[in-house]
Amino acid sequence: MLAQTPTPPYFAVIFTSLRTDGDNGYAAMADLMDQLARRQPGFLGVESAREGVGITVSYWRDEESIIAWKREVQHAAAQRLGQERWYEAYRVRVARVERDYGFER
Amino acid sequence: MLAQTPTPPYFAVIFTSLRTDGDNGYAAMADLMDQLARRQPGFLGVESAREGVGITVSYWRDEESIIAWKREVQHAAAQRLGQERWYEAYRVRVARVERDYGFER
Repeated sequence: MLAQTPTPPYFAVIFTSLRTDGDNGYAAMADLMDQLARRQPGFLGVESAREGVGITVSYWRDEESIIAWKREVQHAAAQRLGQERWYEAYRVRVARVERDYGFER
Repeated sequence: MLAQTPTPPYFAVIFTSLRTDGDNGYAAMADLMDQLARRQPGFLGVESAREGVGITVSYWRDEESIIAWKREVQHAAAQRLGQERWYEAYRVRVARVERDYGFER
């Protein structure tokens, strides 16, 4: 499913990552964070795929919602474990979506 | 590989898609478009993964570069074939990257 987002402007967090070998609890935590993110104020949608590189794009109403989600207690703990165990490297890019268009068959 | 992008601001084009069944020439065209995009003025990098949903994020110096790439002749032809053959649905979001940070082991 593609995320159903409102008319711009809104914000996107582009999270790209390279994983370490092995699961080490990653899949369970990723599920939990997905569920938790969906309940945050200002959450608009998320799209995610991994094929060598992992890409998760989450969409948010405003920057305040993004900052609150980054600081959420369980999410902050997951971020620490991410650096300790799960990621070789990652990059977080916070972007303002200015326009969009699409196609449906 | 994660894209190596400069200090913000710069622009991201978030292209998310659902494919039709079968290849129908898709893989060859995707390779060609990847090579062609990398040679466009203002191109900064690209990250791509498909796992159910496909996500390609390309990074650009400015909006003019994005508009020129959309209009590039071979790319415009690929976009038409995309609607005819390859995509059930897609969404293009043009966003201004305002800040970024990352981690490397």
